[in-house]
Amino acid sequence: MSAMYVSAAGDVEAGKNKAKICNACHGEDGYAKIPIYPHLAGQNAAYLESSLKAYRAKQRQGGQAVVMHAQAANLSDQDIADLAAFYSSLK
Amino acid sequence: MSAMYVSAAGDVEAGKNKAKICNACHGEDGYAKIPIYPHLAGQNAAYLESSLKAYRAKQRQGGQAVVMHAQAANLSDQDIADLAAFYSSLK
Repeated sequence: MSAMYVSAAGDVEAGKNKAKICNACHGEDGYAKIPIYPHLAGQNAAYLESSLKAYRAKQRQGGQAVVMHAQAANLSDQDIADLAAFYSSLK
Repeated sequence: MSAMYVSAAGDVEAGKNKAKICNACHGEDGYAKIPIYPHLAGQNAAYLESSLKAYRAKQRQGGQAVVMHAQAANLSDQDIADLAAFYSSLK
């Protein structure tokens, strides 16, 4: 793990479960159905964690950020690590 | 084009040229070498445009956003559309 970034180890199966609420926008397979939303499948887990934490802290504004503020508000660091592990595991 | 999002038509070849400066972090093939940076290959163009505009406007903070503020500061809407078209065209 790069010294620049330390995270809780993510659990893919737990992440799959927690991702059910994300499927509507990001797709069950991690490919967004709506062009303004990002594909998440195969994305770098460390980047996904960094993004989710920035949404949780409302540091990310602009675009569709406000939608993600609500989604990320109550996620724990472990939730975030699990979701990141799940999506980065998808092909 | 979704009414929610209107953008300049991007030019893949022009985007490939403009992306040279992005390769160091995001990879020539759009796959980031450094885990904290996102893969961009095949990403939704509308999302890429929205993100670049949010970085340009410094609306996105947190994570590695400060690196992208400098990169996006002088991009025109056409530059952004071309870069988005290029990266979304990659497999």
